[in-house]
Amino acid sequence: MPILFVIYKRKDERQMENFRFHVTTDIRFGKDRLDELPDVLNQFGKRVLVVYGGGSIKRNGLYDQVMSQLAKNDNEVFELSGVDPNPRIETVEQGAELCRKEKIDVILAVGGGSVIDCSKAIAGGTYASGDLWEMVTKRAYLGQAVPLVTILTLAATGSEMNRGSVISNLKTKQKLGFGGPNFLPKVSFLDPTNTYSVNAYQTAAGSADIFSHLMENYFDLTPGTEVEDGIAEGLMRAVIKNVPVALDTPNDYDARANLMWASSLALNGLTGASKAGTWSCHAMEHELSAFYDITHGVGLAILTPRWMAHVLNERTTPKLARYAKEVWGVQEAVPELAARMGIQKLTDYFVACGIPMTLPEVGITDETNFEAMAEQAVASSAIATKAFEPLTKEDVVAIYQACMTPTTYL
Amino acid sequence: MPILFVIYKRKDERQMENFRFHVTTDIRFGKDRLDELPDVLNQFGKRVLVVYGGGSIKRNGLYDQVMSQLAKNDNEVFELSGVDPNPRIETVEQGAELCRKEKIDVILAVGGGSVIDCSKAIAGGTYASGDLWEMVTKRAYLGQAVPLVTILTLAATGSEMNRGSVISNLKTKQKLGFGGPNFLPKVSFLDPTNTYSVNAYQTAAGSADIFSHLMENYFDLTPGTEVEDGIAEGLMRAVIKNVPVALDTPNDYDARANLMWASSLALNGLTGASKAGTWSCHAMEHELSAFYDITHGVGLAILTPRWMAHVLNERTTPKLARYAKEVWGVQEAVPELAARMGIQKLTDYFVACGIPMTLPEVGITDETNFEAMAEQAVASSAIATKAFEPLTKEDVVAIYQACMTPTTYL
Repeated sequence: MPILFVIYKRKDERQMENFRFHVTTDIRFGKDRLDELPDVLNQFGKRVLVVYGGGSIKRNGLYDQVMSQLAKNDNEVFELSGVDPNPRIETVEQGAELCRKEKIDVILAVGGGSVIDCSKAIAGGTYASGDLWEMVTKRAYLGQAVPLVTILTLAATGSEMNRGSVISNLKTKQKLGFGGPNFLPKVSFLDPTNTYSVNAYQTAAGSADIFSHLMENYFDLTPGTEVEDGIAEGLMRAVIKNVPVALDTPNDYDARANLMWASSLALNGLTGASKAGTWSCHAMEHELSAFYDITHGVGLAILTPRWMAHVLNERTTPKLARYAKEVWGVQEAVPELAARMGIQKLTDYFVACGIPMTLPEVGITDETNFEAMAEQAVASSAIATKAFEPLTKEDVVAIYQACMTPTTYL
Repeated sequence: MPILFVIYKRKDERQMENFRFHVTTDIRFGKDRLDELPDVLNQFGKRVLVVYGGGSIKRNGLYDQVMSQLAKNDNEVFELSGVDPNPRIETVEQGAELCRKEKIDVILAVGGGSVIDCSKAIAGGTYASGDLWEMVTKRAYLGQAVPLVTILTLAATGSEMNRGSVISNLKTKQKLGFGGPNFLPKVSFLDPTNTYSVNAYQTAAGSADIFSHLMENYFDLTPGTEVEDGIAEGLMRAVIKNVPVALDTPNDYDARANLMWASSLALNGLTGASKAGTWSCHAMEHELSAFYDITHGVGLAILTPRWMAHVLNERTTPKLARYAKEVWGVQEAVPELAARMGIQKLTDYFVACGIPMTLPEVGITDETNFEAMAEQAVASSAIATKAFEPLTKEDVVAIYQACMTPTTYL
């Protein structure tokens, strides 16, 4: 007996956007495959700049493994270490100069999103002329870049499989995303065991970043994007399921593997390609990081539920209720209540992950800069015009204010 | 108040498989972008072999649009038309000879999976030495290939974004998949409006093929593949939601767009990369097509619920019950009953799509060849050893037999 189809009827005449999807990064996923590194690098040349952050890769042995492969391969090795968590334009300038002076053939970024973002900016900065902060503020870099290979050590930003980079300028209190076709890593090594030593706080913060990328793409006004939304829902469920495992058992291979692969797929275009809108929480968080240098994922976790509650209205409720159902399994039939339950579930989840969920907990104890931050958030993004729900400067201030105290949504 | 985490505990010590994900196809998705074709082709050269099937692209105007772009671009155009729905080795031989003789720079495949599969085999066959059926039976082709650009006209096989090809040999009654790194299309144009003229039967059959690819990857023994399974569940829900819309309103842009993009993502490695197992229903269906030349997607739709019911046992029930819940929204708490409800939902859905759901309805009225087909299915695949549930020749015969009459599962 045939079932009666329930046919989803279009509410308006807008359609999915045209898009180009061209993600050529060669992903080498899994453990024990660093012996592939020499062949990978030899495609580009022998002169390698190794970029990394603090000493964590020295403590966990990864640095030695990489250097031993490079020595065996007779590479000419240069190093740039000390890349900051919110990588700075000064480091980019330093790296670009080194690349030019030493005629670097390939950059090997060993680290998380900050190291990879910084390496992309260096790769472009090597060929860019003039002031490198100007290269960033132009937002699109179409010029040449030094080839980039990455070895990922933190599941978070997705930079290992996309064209974007976020660079900070502490002098001007700006943190800006920019990108270009030649920033796409040629090869990225994703070995989940390289994230075993990531501590609980960074694991939770990185996962909040992944989750935020998925939510930012998900909450968009473009209609009919079932493929993108279905993928995003699946990836969100995978993150929800695996973060607690990774926090409980830091060397659980499959949990780390799922978080790592989710990080790449959350921001390589798969969940946003056909969408026209702009992101909201990232624009607001970039100002938090620019003014206070806090951990990006934590800033996002604090902002996201407040933003959801702020934009909850008659028009946005259906998508928020769908999110509650498909991502969190909320079975409530009243849409607005379901939406609120979804926001609460997200909040409870971040709390359970050990993420500080108010601004005072991360050291932001007064509202002095909120006006200036809100102004800059609106100025340097399209949140006032193209967001899921348009946000004025006053909206942004109200969202920052809501982050000052614990909140519940039911 | 923190929620109490429910931590998923590993049941065994196996882990996700290592994998390489390197899908470089440049996807140009959307309408009105055929004027990009000249630049795309000029990367490879001026001598183009256009491969297509029956006359559908002449009837709907696509042929004329393509030829007008090629004329404007001063291409030297050669044509190979009449590619069959299950493309044959003789056509491959003919195309390869043409490529060699005319020194073709690039193959432009305009059509569905059969045309693209045939074009891949031609692309490799141009450089392969000796008997081309031998190239197919080796299953892996590592040699050079003529560059391939595709214009997709049917959402089904996913061939537009992967390395695989399926070729039939009616003489030996064989239909075999083979593939190689150089078969990956360089650029694929995915314009949903090119599928508006696909009739209801082919729309349903193509969607059954997409659905089957997702299910074949989903039902696998590799543990901990939450990312892949979440993506597959999301894509299955997108297909379930959009097929009825496309059947009801053939020129619904978003419905066609979702089916088209789902077809590419269902079989480009995203939902199967970390999995070790082999597919079951495709191996059994290839014998149906090889012996009776039936529509691939229809054969898969007929086989799949019977296969699910056949492999339902204590070990496989949890995954089948998860499928029922996440894909079909089944809320039943008893796992075996939930699993059966999922199988029934799938059957009802295919029936509602207008797919003939028994073998006699597609002209297979007796069981004469079942033994020989089952023997070949086991011989030319790994279903006896690496499937979700290992299948012997006797299992396969029993599944074919179950396809002779309508079945219910509750």
